[in-house]
Parts: sequence; structure tokens; C-alpha cells
Amino acid sequence: MDNLEDKITSEQLIDLVNNKKYQEIRDLFVKYPEIDIAEICNEIDDVTIIITIFRVVKSEFTAELFHNLDQDHQEALIKAMTDKDINTLIGASANDDIVDFLEDMPANLVKRVLQQTTKDDRVVINKLLNYKENTAGSIMTTEYIELLDTTLIQDAISLIRQNGKDAETIYTIFCKDIKRNFLGTVDLDDLIFAQPTQTLNEIMNKDFVTVDVNTDQEEVAQIVKRYDLNAIAVLNDDHKLSGIITIDDVVDIIDKEATEDIAYQAGVSPLQEKYLETPVFKMAFKCIPWLMLLLVLGVFSSMVLSSFQSALALVPILSAFIPAVMDAGGNAGSQTSSVIVRSLALNEFKPKDFFKVLWKEVRIAIITACILAIFAYCWTLIEQYTGLVSYHPGYTDATGVFVYYKDFDLFIAYSKISGLVGITLFTTIILSKVIGCILPLIAKAIHIDPALMSGPFITTIVDVCSLLLYFFICVDIFKIVG
Amino acid sequence: MDNLEDKITSEQLIDLVNNKKYQEIRDLFVKYPEIDIAEICNEIDDVTIIITIFRVVKSEFTAELFHNLDQDHQEALIKAMTDKDINTLIGASANDDIVDFLEDMPANLVKRVLQQTTKDDRVVINKLLNYKENTAGSIMTTEYIELLDTTLIQDAISLIRQNGKDAETIYTIFCKDIKRNFLGTVDLDDLIFAQPTQTLNEIMNKDFVTVDVNTDQEEVAQIVKRYDLNAIAVLNDDHKLSGIITIDDVVDIIDKEATEDIAYQAGVSPLQEKYLETPVFKMAFKCIPWLMLLLVLGVFSSMVLSSFQSALALVPILSAFIPAVMDAGGNAGSQTSSVIVRSLALNEFKPKDFFKVLWKEVRIAIITACILAIFAYCWTLIEQYTGLVSYHPGYTDATGVFVYYKDFDLFIAYSKISGLVGITLFTTIILSKVIGCILPLIAKAIHIDPALMSGPFITTIVDVCSLLLYFFICVDIFKIVG
Repeated sequence: MDNLEDKITSEQLIDLVNNKKYQEIRDLFVKYPEIDIAEICNEIDDVTIIITIFRVVKSEFTAELFHNLDQDHQEALIKAMTDKDINTLIGASANDDIVDFLEDMPANLVKRVLQQTTKDDRVVINKLLNYKENTAGSIMTTEYIELLDTTLIQDAISLIRQNGKDAETIYTIFCKDIKRNFLGTVDLDDLIFAQPTQTLNEIMNKDFVTVDVNTDQEEVAQIVKRYDLNAIAVLNDDHKLSGIITIDDVVDIIDKEATEDIAYQAGVSPLQEKYLETPVFKMAFKCIPWLMLLLVLGVFSSMVLSSFQSALALVPILSAFIPAVMDAGGNAGSQTSSVIVRSLALNEFKPKDFFKVLWKEVRIAIITACILAIFAYCWTLIEQYTGLVSYHPGYTDATGVFVYYKDFDLFIAYSKISGLVGITLFTTIILSKVIGCILPLIAKAIHIDPALMSGPFITTIVDVCSLLLYFFICVDIFKIVG
Repeated sequence: MDNLEDKITSEQLIDLVNNKKYQEIRDLFVKYPEIDIAEICNEIDDVTIIITIFRVVKSEFTAELFHNLDQDHQEALIKAMTDKDINTLIGASANDDIVDFLEDMPANLVKRVLQQTTKDDRVVINKLLNYKENTAGSIMTTEYIELLDTTLIQDAISLIRQNGKDAETIYTIFCKDIKRNFLGTVDLDDLIFAQPTQTLNEIMNKDFVTVDVNTDQEEVAQIVKRYDLNAIAVLNDDHKLSGIITIDDVVDIIDKEATEDIAYQAGVSPLQEKYLETPVFKMAFKCIPWLMLLLVLGVFSSMVLSSFQSALALVPILSAFIPAVMDAGGNAGSQTSSVIVRSLALNEFKPKDFFKVLWKEVRIAIITACILAIFAYCWTLIEQYTGLVSYHPGYTDATGVFVYYKDFDLFIAYSKISGLVGITLFTTIILSKVIGCILPLIAKAIHIDPALMSGPFITTIVDVCSLLLYFFICVDIFKIVG
């Protein structure tokens, strides 16, 4: 396939429509994937052009095109379309795709679309719209193939041929007994390889996994991934099949959840649309509340520094190492929280493992803290000796002249500062890694998204702790001040 | 399905083996997914137990079991197995699975395994092993169904029945002409719905997309996702089909790449194994080099603070707002870089969009900076008036008594500090958002992973800039000091 964007621009597509070259438009849909055509349509502001395309191209193509358009275009189209257009569009769309775009539509347009669906479809769509967001129920489709487990293979194949066109997938067939209880799945390839006179029951996967309508979509995704499924059965509270979720939806969920976690880790609300489609103001307001909150929380650091003003006035060199101490603590905490949050997202450990994880992080923290503390001691000594950081300690002699320390005295004076940094780092790193481990675990336990507990919040908490430790060690242990 | 871990422990599995209850073991494999059984086997240290399981259970099950074991168990098993065992295992494994585990094995074990493969397989495996890591070539499988486009549907179905068992997927059939040029794909469902006397050419997807053996796996994943494919063709330099990548592998890639980006964003090297399987020392050394590097880079902040020691000694309250200014800059920069890095990972914009993106970020930065600056001004005023931060400016009168400012004078003095914070934030946020946008784009342009340019590095760079701005505005513009 050639790249469509190199072949045709939105202007050329508009020309094709205006010059009524409908056959060429139809050919485009045969030759290129709908999602590529949708991207070009997204650049066309005049929806009547797009409506013309909808009318001249087969509805199986245009339905796919529609669901790949951006939200503004979808809204504008629904507003401008006739009832007949909408009816054709809805008739050619899968239920889960309809639900997907209705979720983002204003109420009056939702009503208009629903009026064009059959009564049966309306019941299904309304049911799907009522499931809580991000649950299996809200993303499943009700268009699947369900057969009795006693069906013969040859009959199953002809049933699939007859009814399969509307199904979301025919690669997984779902089996029930006469009471509609869900029994297992049959993969289409097993069906192909089986003898025509066998029954589905004989070749059915009995080691199936299922999810519940209320299961979180992130968990659904991890289950489908773990068991390499093509589609998973979603059961209702009576353990009857009420929908399925296919792997292509799972791929989207995995990417969406990762995007969300990455955003939270950087202290920014996740974008709902694509970057280039999101307006500037909307993007700014994804950032601003977080920055404000973090600025307000920063008051604790300010309070600590404010209350040690006199120490800083006496030994101003102390301030030079504050960023190093604060950053190292923040970084160490973010490292741990990001690893823990990610492992939680990938379902790598269960609540029963929490203490194991904590114990592991404590050991990691001690190793990291020891090495970093020694490194920081040496590095800050170098900074002082080379004059990168200017600190010239000394004493006032009997005649009132200030004499700079030399040799061993100088080493002791420098060592005090470096020791202060080293010891503060040691305690800060242990503390921040433990906090970075505990906070996401607690969040998980109380059903808050652990990703919210990463990055900036850990840093803000650790900032205060590291400053307090720094001054405590400085004033009370090392007695550098006063 | 019941949860296997609630049903059988590793001890019970060992008992089953020791008591020669082989039928019960075979039943387990029918009833539960191999990956669940693999997790239990991972807890068994005695590999002879696992080898017995391999000998009594059908090789189609045990091959799957083997590839789900952790690396230590795989190594131990290969060491302990007889040549015949290895031969059976390899015979039942897909080529890409073999390549996958050989990549992590010591050379002597690789040799031992390769000796047990057929000559043809050995050639293929060696070829796959030679592709650069993370390219399409290194993850593709060579076991697929390729038919001439002139094949009749009825013949195609019987060919699939005969040869499909070894293929990674039969849901996508790949079509070639007699010169072995790749022509397009046929979905199994279209095959099922077609008339027996049609040819593949008539129902073939001609709007296919393909990748090259050297395409990066992240790009492969995004293409498969974008076009909702079940499998994608990997072409060699002669545009002939040389392998395929299926969607279940894509799901793993997407998760792995997200894990990597999340790790880099927090300044920690990504784990190669699962959290609980990674040793403590290995984990510590994923953190330590980053912390050291960041500590060393922190020298620039220290140098700035060190050179403004005298200012801090004169007006120590200045130090109280340093963390707020530094954190806000760092946070604003991380927000932008994380959004840009993620959008790049999801292929949401192309090099030609770079200036559009930069211009967008500049506008976002200005909006964010204006609002944050005003907010910071007000908030720091509150901090000073309420005494959260203690600052009591005044003057020494003619009699030598220090008089605290009141009313308007106090407001002016407080406003100077708050104005300093506000203006510094304004410039810092704009600067850090622009840096947070440019660095990942440059990284992408020069083919470095943009994720490396996020979080901690941005923060470290922005720290220095914000400190310099803070003191520059303080000393040269506001003349607060001296």
C-alpha cells in the first residue's frame, strides 16, 4: 500500500466530490484503510462534502469511516444528516461503536440517533450506556456468536456463515447449554480442523477465563493479554453471557491506561483526545490545577526553610546543597513509586505480596542509600576543594584577624558539610523509597488509582522530610551552626 | 474456570508427581491454562519434578508451559533434559518462541538446543537470532500460511486444514503471486463467507499495510493497533514475505514499551523481568547510576546558590521560596515532556508537525505561566501575612532602633518578595515548558529514545535556569538585596 497522505490531499478529495467523480471516491475506499481516509476528512470543514461521500460509498465503509472521525466532525455530521442517512449509518455500525461515540455526544443528538435504531438495538445500547465508565460492561459488544454446545461442527459452520457477518468476531465462538449457562469457547481454527460430525462440546476450551460486567477494563486487558485470547466472555451477575470484548479493543485500552499512568506520573491530567486535536486552553487547564496544588503543598518546604533562616544566614554554604538533597530524595522516591505503580498496573503482585514488596524495597533502599551517601560525600568534598562551591571556613585569631583553615582543619570543616549531605541523603533515600513504595500500595488497597501517588506528590512530601532531616542533622548532630 | 492457585499448591503438584498420579496431572492441563500451571512450576526448585511432568503430558501443552516458565527454570530444565526431551520440546514449539528463549540463554545451551532442531529450522532460527533486537525481524514468526492468489476458496480451506496446525495464526492468510511477491491478505472470516469457487484474489484485502524486517517493534505495534490487524506481513528487502507478527505479540510489545517509557520518565532503568523475579541488587543498580548522574548534574544548582551566598545571608527569607520556584519549574517541564514523549510514542505527530507542536506548547506555556504567576503572587503574600513564612522587614530609625514596617510599607516589602516569586515562576514555566517540548523532539529527530529526555533531566536543567532567574530578578531587577 502506498501512503494515502502522499497521494491525495483534502483539497483533492473535495474536488472529487464537487466534480461528482464518485467512482474514484469508491475506489479510494477499496484501496486505502478507512482510518487513513478519516484523517483526511478530519481536515475538511464543510460537512456536506463528507455527507456526499457517505451517500455514494457503501455503508460498510462509511460506518468505519464515521467511527474514525474526530468528535467535532461526528457531531457536525449527525446534526447535518437526514434521518435516512443516520439510519443507514447506524444500521452498518457495531453496537459498541455506537455506544462509544454516543458517550461523548450532547443529549439531543443521542436522542436523535437512538430514534433511528430498532427497538431491540435501542434496549441493548441503553443498557450498555448505563454501565459504569471503564468497566467491562461499558466497552463490551453484544454482537457475538453463541451456539448450543451440542451443535454439530458442520451445522456450526453453516450457522456462522449465515449469522456471522454482523458479529464483532467469528474467531471465537461462545457455547451455552439449553439454560443459557455459559460453558466455554471454541476457536474458529479448532472448528476448521475438527471433523464435521463432532459436536462443539468435544472441541470446546474448558479452561476458559471470563470477566464480570463490573470488572475494571484495565483488569480485562491484563487477563486477555495473559491468556493470549482473541476475545473474552463478559458474564452478568447470573453467570450468563452478556457480551464479549475483543483483542483489538484491549490493545486500545492498554495504550490508554499507559497514557493515563504516564500523565499522572508527571502531574498532568491525561488528554482525552489526540495531542494535535486538543485545544490549547484545554491543555493548559490539564496542567494548571496540578501546578497550583503542588505550589500550595510547597508551603511546608517554605516553612522549614523559613524557620531555619538564622542557620542559613550564619552558614550560607548550607543553602548550596539543598537542591542536591531535595532532588536526590525526590528522584529516589519517584523511581520506586513508578516501578511499583507499573507493576500494580501489570497485575504483577497481589495484596498478599504487599509485605514482600515492602521488604524488598527496604533492602533496595538500604543498598542505594549506602552507595549514594558515600558517593555524595566524596563528590561534595570535590566540589568544595575545587571551588565549584565556594566555602572558605576559618577562625578569628587573638588579634581579630580571620585565618582560613588549612590542611587537616580544612578537611574537617569540609568533611562536616559533606558528611551532612551524605548522612541526609542516606536517610532521605531510605525514607523516600519507603514512602514511594507504601503510598501506591495504600492507594491500591483503598481503590484509588495508584498512578496518582507517583512523581510530584512523592517529591513534595519527600522535599519536606529531606529539608527537616538536613537541618536537624546540621544543627543537632553536627552542630555546624552556632 | 476456578482460580488454579486456590486449587493446587506447588507442594500438591510435587505430591502428584511423586505418587505417579499422572492422569490427574494431565487433567490439570485440560482444565487450566498453561500460564497458571507455569506460575506454580516456577515455585518448584527440583527440576526433575518438572521434567517428569514434561514426559507424561502431551508436548503441545508442555511446550506452552515451558515458554511461560521464568528464565532460571528454563535454563535449569535445558541443562537437565535429555536430548530426546529437548527434541520433543523444540518440535512442539513455534519458531518465534524458540528464538525468544534462546536470546536469553548462555551460548552452550543455545548450541545444545539448536542441535536438536531440524536443519531447516536451524537456518530459520539462526536468521531470526541475527536480526537486531527490537526490530520486526527479531520478533516475527516464520510459521504462517502463504497461498497463491489464484487458489480457489475450497482448495484454500483444505490446504489450511492440512497445514494450518503448525501456523502461528490461520486467521490471516497471506497471498503471493507465482514470483513469490506479496499481494495481500485474506481474513479467515472472509474465506468462510466466500463462495467455494471464488479465488483468493477476489476476496483479498488490497488495502493492506506491511512493515519491513528492520522496522522498530514500537512502530509495528502502533501500525497493527491503528489498522486493527490480526497479523501483519513483514517483508524483506526484496519485498517478499519473510515473516509475520501477530496481535498477541503486539499486546506484549505495547505493554513493554510503555513500561520502558514510564521507567525512563522516573529516571530508572526498565526492569527486564517481572518485579518479584528481579533480585534486590539488580533493582538497586537500576536506580543508582541515575541518582549519581543527577547528583553530579546538580552541581550547577549548587554553584548558583553558592555564588549568591551573600544575598542569602543578607535576606535569608529568599531561601524559603527556592523550593517552590524550583519545583514549579521542574513540574511544568515534566508535564510537557511527558505529554510530548507519549504522543511521539503513539505516533501522533510526524516530523513535519514539530513546529506546530512547539508553537502550541509556547501558547500553553504563556497561559499556564500567567495564571500560575498571579496565583503564586497571591499565595506567597498570604504565606507572609499569615506568618507561615516568617519575614518581618523594617528599617533602622535615626535613634538606631529597628522599626517594623506597617500598612502600605509592609505591603510593598511583601509584594517585592511575592512579585519576585511570581515573575520568576512566569519566566521559569515558559522556559521549562519550551525545554520540555524541544528536548524530546530533538531526541526523536536524532534517533535517541525521547523518553530519556523526560522527568529528571528536564528538572535538573530547569533547576539551574530557575535559580539563575530568581537571583537575577532579585538582585538586578527588584534590587531586594543590597
